[in-house]
Amino acid sequence: MDFDEVIDRHGTHSMKWDMMEARYGVPADTGIPMWVADMDFRAAPPIRAELEAMCAHGIYGYYGDDASYLAAIGWWMRTRHGWEVEPDWIFTTHGLVNGTALCVDTYTAPGDGVVLFTPVYHAFARVIQAAGREVVECEMANDGGRYVLDFEAWDRQMTGREKMLVLSSPHNPGGRVWTREELEGIRDFCIRHDLVLVSDEIHHDLVFPGVKHTPFALIEGVEDRLIMMTSTTKTFNIAGIHVGNVIIPDPGLRKAFAARMAALGISGNAFGFRLAEAAYSPAGAAWVDDLVGYLDGNRRLFDDAVNAIPGLASMPLESTYLAWVDFSGTGMSADEVTRRVQQEAKIAVNHGPTFGRGGETFLRFNFATPRSLVKDAVARLGEAFSDLQ
Amino acid sequence: MDFDEVIDRHGTHSMKWDMMEARYGVPADTGIPMWVADMDFRAAPPIRAELEAMCAHGIYGYYGDDASYLAAIGWWMRTRHGWEVEPDWIFTTHGLVNGTALCVDTYTAPGDGVVLFTPVYHAFARVIQAAGREVVECEMANDGGRYVLDFEAWDRQMTGREKMLVLSSPHNPGGRVWTREELEGIRDFCIRHDLVLVSDEIHHDLVFPGVKHTPFALIEGVEDRLIMMTSTTKTFNIAGIHVGNVIIPDPGLRKAFAARMAALGISGNAFGFRLAEAAYSPAGAAWVDDLVGYLDGNRRLFDDAVNAIPGLASMPLESTYLAWVDFSGTGMSADEVTRRVQQEAKIAVNHGPTFGRGGETFLRFNFATPRSLVKDAVARLGEAFSDLQ
Repeated sequence: MDFDEVIDRHGTHSMKWDMMEARYGVPADTGIPMWVADMDFRAAPPIRAELEAMCAHGIYGYYGDDASYLAAIGWWMRTRHGWEVEPDWIFTTHGLVNGTALCVDTYTAPGDGVVLFTPVYHAFARVIQAAGREVVECEMANDGGRYVLDFEAWDRQMTGREKMLVLSSPHNPGGRVWTREELEGIRDFCIRHDLVLVSDEIHHDLVFPGVKHTPFALIEGVEDRLIMMTSTTKTFNIAGIHVGNVIIPDPGLRKAFAARMAALGISGNAFGFRLAEAAYSPAGAAWVDDLVGYLDGNRRLFDDAVNAIPGLASMPLESTYLAWVDFSGTGMSADEVTRRVQQEAKIAVNHGPTFGRGGETFLRFNFATPRSLVKDAVARLGEAFSDLQ
Repeated sequence: MDFDEVIDRHGTHSMKWDMMEARYGVPADTGIPMWVADMDFRAAPPIRAELEAMCAHGIYGYYGDDASYLAAIGWWMRTRHGWEVEPDWIFTTHGLVNGTALCVDTYTAPGDGVVLFTPVYHAFARVIQAAGREVVECEMANDGGRYVLDFEAWDRQMTGREKMLVLSSPHNPGGRVWTREELEGIRDFCIRHDLVLVSDEIHHDLVFPGVKHTPFALIEGVEDRLIMMTSTTKTFNIAGIHVGNVIIPDPGLRKAFAARMAALGISGNAFGFRLAEAAYSPAGAAWVDDLVGYLDGNRRLFDDAVNAIPGLASMPLESTYLAWVDFSGTGMSADEVTRRVQQEAKIAVNHGPTFGRGGETFLRFNFATPRSLVKDAVARLGEAFSDLQ
C-alpha cells in the first residue's frame, strides 16, 4: 500500500473534509482536517476486492447467513488478540456509538450514574446524557504526560448510584494501553462499586511497537459484568459501514441485550457485513501491520515537531492515531490557542473540553493522513506559534 | 434494463436464496425462493454508477453533509407523490423495521396496545411484542377477495389502552392501495381513539397502472399525530443498505423522536446515504416506471396460472410484488398445503399465520424475479396440486 498517496476527499461526503468549514470555520480548500477519527488512506485490498465483487454482482438485497462473518471475527480475535470468542456472543450493532448507547439503554435506568475516566472520547458522554443518565466524570491523573488511574480518589467519589463504567481501552485520547495490573485495578473498582463494565476496544489493533494490548476478556473475575466492544471500522478505515461488535460472554447479560436489540429492530447492513468479513483476513492483517508502521512514523514526526514548540506538549501515544496536545505551557487562553490553530494554521481539530474533565487545555490532532500533510500541518503550527520560539 | 436476465444469487449472502434451505427445508440448488421481499433484479443504473464511484475512490470513512441526500428525498416526494417535505422533518433510520421499533419505543410505553389491521407485514407484530407492548389485531374484512376496513367492529374492540396504529399503505399483503375515503376513515378512527398513526408507505412507488396512491400526509386533520415512513430500499431493491426515512411534520412528535435517536446513537451508513441519493433521480424514476410494467406482467402471469387451479385464489393486487394466495378452497389443512408448496413444488414462501388474524389460510409469494422463474414456479404449483384439476 502507498500510504503516501494524497487522495482528494473533497466533495465525497467525507465528514472530515466536507464539514470542517461549517463546523470550525476552517476553509474547505486550504484547510487540513485533523478532527474526525478516520484515515485518508484507501481501504485494504481485500476490502476493496469485496466491494468490487458486490459492484459487479449488482444486487443489494437483504443480507443473510452470517456464519462466515462471525467466523472471521472469531479468527481475528484468536490470532491477533489471543481471545476465544463464541459466535453466539456477538451482536452486530450500527457502530460503537450505537453499541455504547444500547449498553446504556439495556443495563441502566434514567437517573443512574455512568462512570467515565476523563478525558475520554466525547461521544460517550453525549449518548449517556441523551439517555437521561448522569455522566460521572472520574478525572485521571496526569503523571508527567501519561494518564494514570486514581482509584483512591474515585472510590471516595462514588455515591452508590453508579451502575456502569464505559472504558476506552486503549484510551482515546491520551493513547494509553492499559497494563494487565491496571486492568485488574479497573476490575476490582467495578466489583467494589457493582458496575457493569463496557470495554470499548476499538483501537486494539492500532498499538505501536513494544506495547501489548490485553483484551479485558482475558482478565479473570469480571466475566459476569463485562461487555466487550470491537469493530473493523477504526482498524481498517471503514467507519462509513457503521458496523460494530458488542461481544457478551455472560448468558444473562446477553439475554438482556438481545431483548433490546429485538425491541429496537437493530440488524446490520449488507455492505457492513461483507466488508468487515473481508477485512478480518490474512491479507487484512498484513495491511494493518504496514499501517501501524506508517502511523508510527507519522507519530514521531508530529510529536518531534510539536514538542519543539515551547509550551506545547504532545502526549506520548502507545496506541491510536490521535495526538493529544497540551497547550497549557503556552500561558494562552484556550480561545487564543484555538484561534491560532483554526484561523492561522487552518487546521480543524477536536477541542479538549468536549472530552470532559482534564481536557480543558488540550486539542486532539488526527495524524492518519499522508506524511506530506502531517509535515504541512506541523509547519503551519510552527508558524502560528512562532512568537513562542 | 433487462429484467428477464437470471442472475445467480446463490452464495452471495442473499437471505432469500442462501437461507431458504435452513429456514424452510427447500433445497438451495433446485428451490425457488419467493419469500423475503427483495427482487432478483440488478439495481438501477444510477445506483450502480454511484457504487462504482465509491469503489474507485477507495475511502469509506464517516459520512457527512446530508443536504443533497435530504434534497433528493424532497425532490422524489414532490415529483412522484405531490408531497412537500421539509428537510428537517426527515430522520434516517436503519430501515423501517428499525423505524417502526423506534416509533413504538418513542410514543408508547410497556403494556400499551398497538393496533394492526391484519393480516399485515409480520415484522410489525414482532417488534411490538419484543418491546413488551400488546399487539391489538383488528382483522380486516375480505370482501370478495379485497380487504376492506371494518371500523364498526374495531370501535367496539378498542379498550382505551391502545396508543398507536401501525398502518401498511399500500397494504402488505393483500396489495390494497387505500382510497382517500378509506384514509379519511383511518384518520377519524385514530382521532376517536387518540392513536399516533404510523403510516408505513414503503410500497408507495410500486403501484400498478390505473391506481393512485395517496400519501397520508395529504389527508387533512391528522398532522399532529402522523409519522410517515418511506424508503428507497423496496422501490429500488437495495434493502441491504438498511436506510429508511421516518418523516415527521409535527414539531412535538419530532422532538420526542429526535431525543430517542440521540439516546440510542442511531445514524446512517455511508453506502446507504449515497445509494439512496442516487436512486432518487430522474434516471431512477425511469427505471421504476419500467420495473412496475415488468412486475405487472409477472402479476398477470402468476394470478392467471394460480387462479386456474381449483381451490386457489390469488388476491388481486393494486400494489406490491407479493401475491397473497388463499388456499381455503382446497379443503386441505395448512400443513398439507405448505408441504406441497415447499416439498413438492420446492418453493419457499411466507406462511400466512405470521401475518396475524385472517392470514391462516394464506401463503405469500414474491414474484419479483425474472419471468422464466415465475413460469417455472406456477408450473410446479400446477403439478403439486394436479389432483385438484
